[in-house]
Amino acid sequence: MTLTTTSLSRESLIEDYRRVRSRTEGLARPITAEDAQVQSMDDVSPAKWHLAHVSWFFETFILRRDESYRSSREEFKVLFNSYYNTVGEKHPRSQRGFLTRPSLVEVMDYRHSVDDAIELYLRSVPEQTLATLAPILRVGLHHEQQHQELMMTDILHVYWSNPLKPAYSESPSPPASTVPALDWHRYEGGVCRIGYEGDGFGFDNEYPRHRQFVHPFELASRTVTAGEYMEFIADGGYQRPTLWLADGWAQLQQDGWEAPMYWERRQATWWRMGLHGEQPVEPSAPVVHVSYYEAEAFARWAGARLPTEFEWEVAASNVAVEGNLQESETWAPSPAAASSDGPVQLFGDVWEWTASAYLPYPGYRVNEGALGEYNGKFMCNQMVLRGGSFVTPQEHIRESYRNFFYPQSRWQFMGLRLARDVEA
Amino acid sequence: MTLTTTSLSRESLIEDYRRVRSRTEGLARPITAEDAQVQSMDDVSPAKWHLAHVSWFFETFILRRDESYRSSREEFKVLFNSYYNTVGEKHPRSQRGFLTRPSLVEVMDYRHSVDDAIELYLRSVPEQTLATLAPILRVGLHHEQQHQELMMTDILHVYWSNPLKPAYSESPSPPASTVPALDWHRYEGGVCRIGYEGDGFGFDNEYPRHRQFVHPFELASRTVTAGEYMEFIADGGYQRPTLWLADGWAQLQQDGWEAPMYWERRQATWWRMGLHGEQPVEPSAPVVHVSYYEAEAFARWAGARLPTEFEWEVAASNVAVEGNLQESETWAPSPAAASSDGPVQLFGDVWEWTASAYLPYPGYRVNEGALGEYNGKFMCNQMVLRGGSFVTPQEHIRESYRNFFYPQSRWQFMGLRLARDVEA
Amino acid sequence: MTLTTTSLSRESLIEDYRRVRSRTEGLARPITAEDAQVQSMDDVSPAKWHLAHVSWFFETFILRRDESYRSSREEFKVLFNSYYNTVGEKHPRSQRGFLTRPSLVEVMDYRHSVDDAIELYLRSVPEQTLATLAPILRVGLHHEQQHQELMMTDILHVYWSNPLKPAYSESPSPPASTVPALDWHRYEGGVCRIGYEGDGFGFDNEYPRHRQFVHPFELASRTVTAGEYMEFIADGGYQRPTLWLADGWAQLQQDGWEAPMYWERRQATWWRMGLHGEQPVEPSAPVVHVSYYEAEAFARWAGARLPTEFEWEVAASNVAVEGNLQESETWAPSPAAASSDGPVQLFGDVWEWTASAYLPYPGYRVNEGALGEYNGKFMCNQMVLRGGSFVTPQEHIRESYRNFFYPQSRWQFMGLRLARDVEA
Amino acid sequence: MTLTTTSLSRESLIEDYRRVRSRTEGLARPITAEDAQVQSMDDVSPAKWHLAHVSWFFETFILRRDESYRSSREEFKVLFNSYYNTVGEKHPRSQRGFLTRPSLVEVMDYRHSVDDAIELYLRSVPEQTLATLAPILRVGLHHEQQHQELMMTDILHVYWSNPLKPAYSESPSPPASTVPALDWHRYEGGVCRIGYEGDGFGFDNEYPRHRQFVHPFELASRTVTAGEYMEFIADGGYQRPTLWLADGWAQLQQDGWEAPMYWERRQATWWRMGLHGEQPVEPSAPVVHVSYYEAEAFARWAGARLPTEFEWEVAASNVAVEGNLQESETWAPSPAAASSDGPVQLFGDVWEWTASAYLPYPGYRVNEGALGEYNGKFMCNQMVLRGGSFVTPQEHIRESYRNFFYPQSRWQFMGLRLARDVEA
Repeated sequence: MTLTTTSLSRESLIEDYRRVRSRTEGLARPITAEDAQVQSMDDVSPAKWHLAHVSWFFETFILRRDESYRSSREEFKVLFNSYYNTVGEKHPRSQRGFLTRPSLVEVMDYRHSVDDAIELYLRSVPEQTLATLAPILRVGLHHEQQHQELMMTDILHVYWSNPLKPAYSESPSPPASTVPALDWHRYEGGVCRIGYEGDGFGFDNEYPRHRQFVHPFELASRTVTAGEYMEFIADGGYQRPTLWLADGWAQLQQDGWEAPMYWERRQATWWRMGLHGEQPVEPSAPVVHVSYYEAEAFARWAGARLPTEFEWEVAASNVAVEGNLQESETWAPSPAAASSDGPVQLFGDVWEWTASAYLPYPGYRVNEGALGEYNGKFMCNQMVLRGGSFVTPQEHIRESYRNFFYPQSRWQFMGLRLARDVEA
Repeated sequence: MTLTTTSLSRESLIEDYRRVRSRTEGLARPITAEDAQVQSMDDVSPAKWHLAHVSWFFETFILRRDESYRSSREEFKVLFNSYYNTVGEKHPRSQRGFLTRPSLVEVMDYRHSVDDAIELYLRSVPEQTLATLAPILRVGLHHEQQHQELMMTDILHVYWSNPLKPAYSESPSPPASTVPALDWHRYEGGVCRIGYEGDGFGFDNEYPRHRQFVHPFELASRTVTAGEYMEFIADGGYQRPTLWLADGWAQLQQDGWEAPMYWERRQATWWRMGLHGEQPVEPSAPVVHVSYYEAEAFARWAGARLPTEFEWEVAASNVAVEGNLQESETWAPSPAAASSDGPVQLFGDVWEWTASAYLPYPGYRVNEGALGEYNGKFMCNQMVLRGGSFVTPQEHIRESYRNFFYPQSRWQFMGLRLARDVEA
Repeated sequence: MTLTTTSLSRESLIEDYRRVRSRTEGLARPITAEDAQVQSMDDVSPAKWHLAHVSWFFETFILRRDESYRSSREEFKVLFNSYYNTVGEKHPRSQRGFLTRPSLVEVMDYRHSVDDAIELYLRSVPEQTLATLAPILRVGLHHEQQHQELMMTDILHVYWSNPLKPAYSESPSPPASTVPALDWHRYEGGVCRIGYEGDGFGFDNEYPRHRQFVHPFELASRTVTAGEYMEFIADGGYQRPTLWLADGWAQLQQDGWEAPMYWERRQATWWRMGLHGEQPVEPSAPVVHVSYYEAEAFARWAGARLPTEFEWEVAASNVAVEGNLQESETWAPSPAAASSDGPVQLFGDVWEWTASAYLPYPGYRVNEGALGEYNGKFMCNQMVLRGGSFVTPQEHIRESYRNFFYPQSRWQFMGLRLARDVEA
Repeated sequence: MTLTTTSLSRESLIEDYRRVRSRTEGLARPITAEDAQVQSMDDVSPAKWHLAHVSWFFETFILRRDESYRSSREEFKVLFNSYYNTVGEKHPRSQRGFLTRPSLVEVMDYRHSVDDAIELYLRSVPEQTLATLAPILRVGLHHEQQHQELMMTDILHVYWSNPLKPAYSESPSPPASTVPALDWHRYEGGVCRIGYEGDGFGFDNEYPRHRQFVHPFELASRTVTAGEYMEFIADGGYQRPTLWLADGWAQLQQDGWEAPMYWERRQATWWRMGLHGEQPVEPSAPVVHVSYYEAEAFARWAGARLPTEFEWEVAASNVAVEGNLQESETWAPSPAAASSDGPVQLFGDVWEWTASAYLPYPGYRVNEGALGEYNGKFMCNQMVLRGGSFVTPQEHIRESYRNFFYPQSRWQFMGLRLARDVEA
């Protein structure tokens, strides 16, 4: 039974709810009250905020439909609203780190009071209401899974911001490996169907399923490795403006980029900060924490390009959703395994930058009401990433899933895979 | 004989060169030495800089191929390089307004010394060399025409930055008119051919001609008028976040937008600054100086959307390049004329924002050498505009022409036209 | 027995040490681990950082003189260095809030390990060494008392930054009162002696005692009240540029000042945030949280001026150090009591802005070594305040004590007292 | 006959007026219309603006007293108001460079129309009115002389901002020389009289003459030379934080200071930009274009300190106002001449930073009306400089003259002279 079920069975809904909610708390366990407090840059939200906001989501969009509902913490309505203008006032994003009250303990109490109310409500409503609630609840669960990933992304930045460089996990990193040589897989394209299809769950930005013309192309068999990326650096990749988009070069100069985020050179060795703490860069592992600008420059240097999101989706079509995902608990991207069947690592390891701007699909319609603010209003200035990372839950990702970040963003677990044109 | 000719006849090349160069100087005539000095914001270049840079372009890419060439002003090589890293050092963009020397008189002398050298060179080279030079010369002429438009765009900002609000032109504005009701024209789409085709001139970003799948759509018969835009304002368009992209709403709040750029409310009346100076907004004329964010919000408010650049190109296909263009010397957008045949105002009046991000076409290749920096490195974070404005030269615009600006840009002569989905 | 004793008795030194250190922990008791984590603006340091830094001070300047000393946390040497370039590297000031590790518990453990080592060391060193250590230890204790006050100042900003506006103290605020009418006390001035004199403790910036020529002046009998300040606001004090220094007016416009910091108007009533939480402004209490600019503008509006620090010291000479000081545990400034003898409230309640820039006294010499960085390098761009506040320890303040802040600073507990010229 | 006469003779007033006004135009002669247009940083005003503003001053404070006066350019009332809130609206300071209209020619016409009106008015008013006007006119003339100096200061920045580095003057720089060894001159101090005394002209900030207690001190016989300053640089002056005020060190790091403003190292040689263009630094000439922070750090490095403004005035008392001043037309500071009588270079060459904050003298009163905004509102955050520079008019400077700049300012012609404490 997965989240993508269409079953309206009360018990399976409740079971899904419990599993996702409980997983979030499991992920948060190594994070102290003080770790959970801090917003180390504007893009980061404190872990405590994530834990509260996902509960706020269920309270706002499910429980407040029940006129008899009384929130245990009415003041959280504003505090933990992220960006829903339709819902009302919002605590300013850049000040999320100032909420020393409620404490982490109070936030966990709030979570549990919401949990109790949700279960009670789901058990008590008539079937017809349940049919209305179920899709919203499922949005809420997928929303919480997104925040599971964001919480991990953000806590890494918090740890990195501390000169003591604490580790999230004390378990060993994924082992090094011999990386298979990079192969190319050819696809013929033509008029292709793109977007979510099925009776499971898809976000509004994956709809409607529609046609795109895709020219013939080849896709790399695996993601780019840290070792390959070190060659780019050694070849002057960060010193040659002609390899870069103009905006990328400006960003590089402004921020003094010389390597991926979290990398630091110590004498002859590159080290990087990750959820396992500071370690030497493992050359066989996928490169991670590169911006779109860096991914795009690397591809140019390599004589290739990034795939479009349509090309990626064509290649991922009918590929099983398996890989180094959250459930693996590796807490780092792993070296690719050999395969002759087709590209590997499409799901898990690192989000893959595509050459596609995040735009509405032809015929796109936003949801009704406040949930209409979920995706559509961000469709500008961002680039699409595909495939999930090592902290994405397996039941959360799929071939049509569209993630999106600004081209300068690097703190998410993002890497790249190459593509190239071929003659028709 | 137009710029888009393929003729390699020396005389026709020289004639084209003279015509374009002379037109630039004609446009600059009302601009004083002091007007031509000022950079009123980072995006603006001084008119003097435009006049020098376009000459630098011919000197750098044509004359310096001749080993015997000696520049009259060798120091201009750095001063008037815009963004060509391949060519060498550049005077910083934000400091273009500090070049009080060379004077405007010296810049005009420089222009004429380049002109003399170009003519001499074109007349003296063997046919084979001429065949190599001709396409570069034509890029240079189209480049100069782009700067004709930019010079007009920029000088308006300079004049607006002065509380005395001087006018570029003392001639009367285009007359008001009764605007025809907005009609919709239907296109069936399918697999369409997009990009430049022919033996005239197209920029590298218009290549290669390729296939796109276009879903059925309708396009508005004319551009949105200032009167319609005033209704949007009056209906709270600038106060309702749910009408806006998130980045657009943030920009609006940061910059305090309440109307298009150059508009100012005086009691009950909107005034706007234009090349004719300050005048009441003419409701029948196309709205101009709106950002992509405003165009997109207006479209949402109107229950429609912006067309993609592919839809626009499908509609403009085989439409004659006629309209309120630079040669009309109206110095302002004009009200639409009635027509039952198809959309009007596709060419001229205002650049039309499209819903398409500025990205490379499938199979795009940058030019060799320094000219490879002309377009490709800007293919990120910008949106495509189509169709030209009242200051675009007629021989410069075409159905496949792609202009591009950041979504927050408003100082260019940019407006919008609506589109909408239809059932297949 | 006070801190200002010259006794070198080991036991009295240890007793002083214990008392001050213990007092700090008492003040910190209501502050949670999460409260203690946050840096709500660059000027603020987290309470946890204060608690660690004052211990670092004793470790750095006392314990590290003992070659056999081994720090329990060697990595704190950099983390908790504030601004001593002579000592070595420093964790950047603006990133103090990112130190989620060490936890508050670890910091308290560090405090206690330093305490144990200090007591052991003081007990074990020969008399001659003790004579060398004692003055440094006393600097350390006065340093810790300064940080007691700063910790209170900073935690108020942290609480205010939270929309829930938590209170530091749940005890009642000081009672309202009828404020005595403002009287003026006359001083004849002449060549006066200024600076610390005696065999107790004075900071280097209070030395040398020297001569200043003071013209005859009058000093107000009490500080300016919140009620008087509300009259200034009501009279357009924040709308009239001619009342303000040019830099003050620019600051007001930039930051949108309309009242003292922490004030907020709700309908007809002014409320303010303080250590007791949010409460209506008490008109009889001294106004607090005004910048030098506001103090100076108020004085001009009132037809008076601020006293110089020399005038203030002349007036405070031989006045007993009594008042609403830290030991009162009022956690707010109190209304003035009536008195005919001379000015009241010179010590305690609010720091009083003076008209004097913070500059070295004639003949000033900085301390040797790292402690030379304590005061001297800040003698530029700041204004002197005198007299202590309701969170200043009684044994810490004296007539020659010079506090100093930038003229725009408002988050300290700062108010003002008027002065005026008189004929000789 | 000098400006400081008290004569109310109409003709001598008119003669003074003509001389000062004509001198301004003489100084402006090498400045082209384009040079005069540009504001190369916020602190700089365009030369055209200076030329207009000083005329605005006479129009506003003299001519507008005459009810029959009609301005030839009423719109200049706002455009050329610098900072007089009492007068009304002001064109924003940071946008002075955008005033391409009026042209330089129009500004000169405006000057002359004001000149004609002033002469006519001065000739036509009754004696009693003249007695009222004369002091204001004299303020206007001293004001214009200040702007003569500022115009030269600012145009140097404009020229320096241009990579072509044009020279203001083509005449040769002052010759190098052997600098006399630095001597010290002792002063006993005591209760001294400070401030303007006499029946000539003094600004309000020089009043009232009052008493200050000055401790015994020694003053250097000449200013610090560029050669001495190069030793400071070579000795790591810009790399050692312990030599600097904390704010100075922060400024150095923020702006990347490595030498005085306008200096540039080329291989082993320091070059500097001045009114003669770019030249190697002359070691025997006074160092110029150092901030207060640099002056103060140099003094600490040299084992000395800066004098207070009171010490400086004591030393300059009864010294003849002679030296390398504007009338010398050297356009650069000159090496000191030898002298055994007392300090040289007190007047002219470079403004000398003092250790005194710019504060009101005891008993200071601002002028009535708008002229009250002239000086008093700037008495915060700035440091006093004394003695004038090589572009200060001889009749403008005096022993009691107080100039003032922010401690980070470097673009004025500012240097330093050392002082030191002595035993009483």
